[in-house]
Formats: sequence, structure tokens, C-alpha cells
Amino acid sequence: MSDYLEMSDDELSRLFKTVKSEYEHMRSLHLSLDMSRGKPGFDNMDLSGEMFDLVGNDTGFKNISGIDCRNYGGLDGLAELKNLFGEILGISPEQIIVGGNSSLNMMFDTIAQAMTHGMGGEPWMKQGEIKFLCPVPGYDRHFAITEYFGFKLIPVAMTDEGPDMDEVENLVKDPSVKGIWCVPKYSNPEGITYSDTVVKRMAALKPAAGDFRIFWDNAYAVHDLYDSGDSLLNLYDECVRLGNPDLPIIFTSTSKITFPGAGVAAEAASPNNVAMLKGRMKYQTIGPDKLNQLRHARMFKTADDVRRHMKKHADILRPKFECVLSELQNELSGTGIARWTNPRGGYFISLWVMNGCAKRVVQLCANAGMILTPAGAPFPYGMDPDDSNIRIAPSYPSVEEIKKASSVLCCAVKYAALEKIIADRKQK
Amino acid sequence: MSDYLEMSDDELSRLFKTVKSEYEHMRSLHLSLDMSRGKPGFDNMDLSGEMFDLVGNDTGFKNISGIDCRNYGGLDGLAELKNLFGEILGISPEQIIVGGNSSLNMMFDTIAQAMTHGMGGEPWMKQGEIKFLCPVPGYDRHFAITEYFGFKLIPVAMTDEGPDMDEVENLVKDPSVKGIWCVPKYSNPEGITYSDTVVKRMAALKPAAGDFRIFWDNAYAVHDLYDSGDSLLNLYDECVRLGNPDLPIIFTSTSKITFPGAGVAAEAASPNNVAMLKGRMKYQTIGPDKLNQLRHARMFKTADDVRRHMKKHADILRPKFECVLSELQNELSGTGIARWTNPRGGYFISLWVMNGCAKRVVQLCANAGMILTPAGAPFPYGMDPDDSNIRIAPSYPSVEEIKKASSVLCCAVKYAALEKIIADRKQK
Repeated sequence: MSDYLEMSDDELSRLFKTVKSEYEHMRSLHLSLDMSRGKPGFDNMDLSGEMFDLVGNDTGFKNISGIDCRNYGGLDGLAELKNLFGEILGISPEQIIVGGNSSLNMMFDTIAQAMTHGMGGEPWMKQGEIKFLCPVPGYDRHFAITEYFGFKLIPVAMTDEGPDMDEVENLVKDPSVKGIWCVPKYSNPEGITYSDTVVKRMAALKPAAGDFRIFWDNAYAVHDLYDSGDSLLNLYDECVRLGNPDLPIIFTSTSKITFPGAGVAAEAASPNNVAMLKGRMKYQTIGPDKLNQLRHARMFKTADDVRRHMKKHADILRPKFECVLSELQNELSGTGIARWTNPRGGYFISLWVMNGCAKRVVQLCANAGMILTPAGAPFPYGMDPDDSNIRIAPSYPSVEEIKKASSVLCCAVKYAALEKIIADRKQK
Repeated sequence: MSDYLEMSDDELSRLFKTVKSEYEHMRSLHLSLDMSRGKPGFDNMDLSGEMFDLVGNDTGFKNISGIDCRNYGGLDGLAELKNLFGEILGISPEQIIVGGNSSLNMMFDTIAQAMTHGMGGEPWMKQGEIKFLCPVPGYDRHFAITEYFGFKLIPVAMTDEGPDMDEVENLVKDPSVKGIWCVPKYSNPEGITYSDTVVKRMAALKPAAGDFRIFWDNAYAVHDLYDSGDSLLNLYDECVRLGNPDLPIIFTSTSKITFPGAGVAAEAASPNNVAMLKGRMKYQTIGPDKLNQLRHARMFKTADDVRRHMKKHADILRPKFECVLSELQNELSGTGIARWTNPRGGYFISLWVMNGCAKRVVQLCANAGMILTPAGAPFPYGMDPDDSNIRIAPSYPSVEEIKKASSVLCCAVKYAALEKIIADRKQK
């Protein structure tokens, strides 16, 4: 395809007319499509249907430790799941806290604890203005937690191997910088896996703040789309090796392994950090839902069971990703008006359109019956300085719907770009 | 039985010899009994066994609103459960937030929110020393939450119709007093239900602090032991009538209806308060475990279903309570060394032994293989100023075990009293 920016005014104008009529045709179809959130589809959830038969009157309610999972108790979760998450994360089971259905909840509670009781130092709330590093584009719900607690959010550029570590190393010299949000494997929304170098530099950080923490949300630890997945260096091991064991707090969950609303979440950290976290939890709850933990423990005896299960997810998700990517390739490659990531796992594709066009693209899609994540969402305060990034979540709709949605999207990207180029030229 | 305090030294000494030998006999039995926590027994939990068959591949995963309960979403819970809890609490469904498996967790999070973001005013953490009212004896885990957050805990005496409202009305004149913990029906540990007068005076409170809240933990709302249960006036209605709708925050759960570790908790309040609470929750989580909510919704279509179910619980619990009470009556009535409550619901009996003897009784019981809640636990900072109160939790052991445990308990109460009376007389 030819580069839009090199077209003559005439060519642009003719092309815009074609694109407009294509767009009007799509509008007339009254589509109802949603690629806004990283929701698994029905077929993905159906893969875990057997779980419902694993805990009931016929199977008993005791775990391997002999605990009746119906009753109170067990603050940090079942032994089986500590072993399982330990295996997945490469961390010792006694350093794992197995929680309820939401790792986001565990992150929020950890930050809340730091606000009122500190992370080994003064409560963050008593330290004046505090800051948090936000690699961009990133996960909107992460940024929102720290925004809710009044942090000043500092965007950090993502490179194709993770956050710009020169920037990070420089920023942590400020003692009011208390942490960084990371999705280190198949990052949300770019699908980037942090390189070994980035992980090593992360582990070697010497923040001015002794209570600085890396919030390492390994949400997509086992979420490969292809047989040979990306591999992520073990941050905790690196931290221990460098004498920084208390630096990271690690999260994961089965939300996208079993059920988004009824999975099991886990938090892992150094013995010091775990003791600190449990020191709050023992006031907060008597324990998590152990019956749901038991369902998971009986379904997945080892991390290999999980990996086998994830291959089935991949078989469902891969065609959805490939459908979007091939449409982007066919429609936008060579136009000079967009670039995108080709993730090998996770839940998202990140699309960059021409500066100043992202909001317009999202609006054009909405007008044609297709919902995208609001432009800007992957940035602190929802503000993309370039108004350029769009997060695409292809997991929920069917392949057929995704095909339609991708056509709408590509058409909207062209529409917005042409509108802008033509307007810009007129201004000159 | 004769009053110990009116016995001669000789009589006391002879009696002590008998009690001691009784106690040594009990010790020799190497019992292993636990009446320390309000845990439902196996037979209670078995009553909800059918729940496991109500959500599975054959039944589907959609609720009445058509939501697939496996997926993300639904911040404040399923419509069915809002209706159900609304019916139980006498509050409009849209004012109900249905959560995870722990109402304690909801209370903790509500206090945590008040600390960092306030309850309509300045964050509590920014208001200097703040205080919380604790009717005593009360629920140790309530007091512990406010202790964890650094409140100064102010004990308020319980009368036989609820907290001493003269005291409460006086104390809330202090603007640093931010709330009060209440278990208004079958209170923990006394089993007292607040009288209409107490509820009305509670609703009519005019605290100096505009951000004062009544934490109304209606944990035993439907937990009658007898056909004619105690009735509790609707606090929220009274508050609305008196123009104080924002005063109460109300909690309940199915922990002692279905499963202690895997029930469903709920929080209810005025529209203002609910909006404030959801304003935090939307950052904290994407939503609760809706599959477990769906299990509950399908098991209990109406509050009457719950009440019918609770009668089965009562049939199991009543003999346990009556066993303890008849042993206390037989062994300690008329001795002048103990008094106790006769609750008609809930999970506890409260026993008062001679001042200065509670710790000793708990220790004597422990030495004979029987665990009680630590003496002092029902008081702020775990300190019973009279060292007199003991909480008895007869729900978990079998009736046979409770019979043995009650014998040990009564023997220990006599032992400690005699030891004390004899020592006191020697001192004179």
C-alpha cells in the first residue's frame, strides 16, 4: 500500500471519498461489537467446566492437609495452591499468599496497607507528596489504584524490551518515588515480555526510598499463544542474588486460566514482605474462599497441568489475534499511518495511529457500533500525550465478529488519518 | 447449691479438696475439646450440601439478569442476592452491596477507606487522635480492626438491652469519636438483642463528628435458636425517620447460614454511603465471585427459604446451647461465683466468673485439654478490667463433647473461685 503522507492532495481526496463510503456502509450494518476489555470468551471459560464436579458431596471437602475447606481459617490459602503458584512463579511456597478471586484486589490492599501502615517505613500517607512510576502504555486499572490514593503518576516510556531502565534508574533517585507498576510478561497492552537485561536492571535498582516496591503483576505468566512462549527471567531470584529481596511484590491469578470472576489470585514476596502483608490480613479476614481454592487444586495438580490447559486456551485465542493482525497487515501496512505490536501471548494488541487521531478512531468505531477501550486509558490520568495509542482486546468476540471489527477499525484508522492529513495541509 | 461466699473456712477447704480431685480426674482423661471460636459444626455445614449441585455445566451460569457469572464484572453483586439481603435486612436492594466471602473484610475495607479517604469529611488519618466506641464484652475481631488502625478504643458498658445509651450519647459529643461497633441481634458474646429503645436512641444520635458511623454488624439476623426469635427494630428506617440516613453502615453474611469460609457477605447503607463505598470498590476490584453468589441465589429464592433453612441449623445448635446452660445451672446456680446469659440465638454464651478469675479458669481448662477463647478477648486491647468474662462457643463440638467440656468448665470455675476465696480470706 502507498504511504498516505506521500500522496498528492488529489489522491488523498479521492481516497478519503472511498474510505468514507466504506465507513458509511459499515455504519449501515448496525454492528454491535466489543473489543474493549480483556474478557475471555465463552469457549475459553467452557474449558474449565469440569471444575464444578471436583468439589461436592461425593468428593469431600478436605484438602491434602486435612482441612475442611467449608469452614473458617487458613489465612494464606491451601498448601496445594501455594505449591502450584510457587511452581508457576518460581518462588518458594511459603512465600506465597493465596487469596480470593482478584489479584487487583490484592494489589489495592497492598497499596492501601502501605498508605496507612507503611512498607517497612513511615506510612506513605504521612510522607507528603509521593510518586509512582507508570510504564506507558500500561494497564489502566493499575494506574487508577495509585491515582485513587493520590500519588503523582510519572509515565515511563516502554521500549520493545520493557520500561526504559535509564529513565527508571534516574527517577528512583527521588525518595518520594515509592514504586513502579509492571506487567513483565506479555505486557498489557503491548504484549512485550521484559528482556533479561531489563529484569536484571530492575532487580539491581537502588531506590533512594527504602520502602520502594516493584509491583510485578505477572498476570500472563502462562498465557502463551504459541508453543514456544516468551521466557521471563525470575525477578525474585535476581533480587535475592543482588541483596534486594524485599524489592518486588509479585502477583498472579487464574482469572484467565479458569474463570475471570471466580478464579484464584496469589501474591508472593520475600519472607519480610510476606510477614508484613499477613500482619494486615489477619485483621482483615479470617481467610479466603477455600472451596474455590480446592476446586482449583483438584483441577491442577502441577504447573504442567496448567500449561496443558493453557494450550487449549491458546488454540481458541490464537486465531482471534491472527485475525486482527492479518487485517491490520492487509489494510494498513505501508500506509505510514499506523504501527502495532505482534504479541506472542497475553490478551492485547497495541495499535499506534497518527498522533492526534486515537480519540477520533475510537469515536468513529463507536459510531459504527464497535466499542474499543477509551483512547488514553493506558496512560496515567487517562491522558495519552500524543493521542496515538489504542488498546485492542480480541479475546471476547468470535473470530467472525473480530473479522468485522477489524475491518471497522482499519477503516476508522484510515478515515481519521485522512481527515487529519487533509486538514493539516489546508492549514499550511 | 450453697453460696460459696457464705461458707466457713472449713467447708471451703473440704469443698476445694473435692473439686481438686474432680479436676485431677478430668485431667487424667486427656480430653481434647475446643469451645474457643464460633465455628459451625460439620452437621451444620452439611445442611448446605445441595448448593454444590446448583451451579454447573447442566444448570448454566446465568443469573436472572442474564449475566454469565463466570466472567468479569458486576461490582456490587447479583440482583437476586441484593433482593435477598434486602429482604433479610429490611433495606432497599439498590442500597445493598453483595461482596465476597467475608463481612469482616467489608468492615475492614470500610474503615480503611475512611482512614485514607474519609467518610464524607477529611480522611480519618488526617484528623489526629481518633476514637471508636466498643460495647463490652464484644467481638474481638471488631475491636482488633480499629486497634490495627490506631484508634483509641473506648469501652462502653453493655446493659441487658444493648449498649448503655447514656454513655454513648455522652461520648459522641467528642468530635474525635468516629464510630461504634454493634452486633445488635444475639450480640457476640452475650446473645443480647438490642431493645427498641436502644435502637431508637442509636438512630437519634447527634454525634459531634459529621463522619461518625454506626458499624451495625447484623451477623445473626436470622440465627434464632427457637421458633419465636428475638426481634430487632430496623435501624435504617429509624435513621431515615429521624433525618439521619447516613449514620449506619450495616453488615451481614451467610457465613453461618451456608459455609463459614465460602459464604457471601453484604454491606448496606444510605444511597450516599453506598455511592461513597462503590467509589472505592471500583478501584479495588472488577467484581466479587459471582458463581458463589449464584449458588446462594439458587439455593435461597426468598428470605423465607433462608428462615426455613435456619430452623434446621437451630435444631442442631439448640441442644448444644441447652447442654451448656443446663450444666451451668446444675453446677453453678446458687454458688454466687458465676452468672451467665441465656441467649435465644446467635453463637455464644457469656459467662461471668468471680472478678480476677477468668484467666485462671481459661488456664485450668486448657490444662485439662479444653480450649476456650482467651480471657479478655471480648474487650478492647484484650483487657478485661475485672478479669471476669469468658466467652463460650458451643457450636463446633458434638453434644457429647460439649457435655464433657461443660463439666470441665464448671469444675474449673469452682476451682478458681475456691482458690481465690481461700487466698483472700488468708490475706485478711
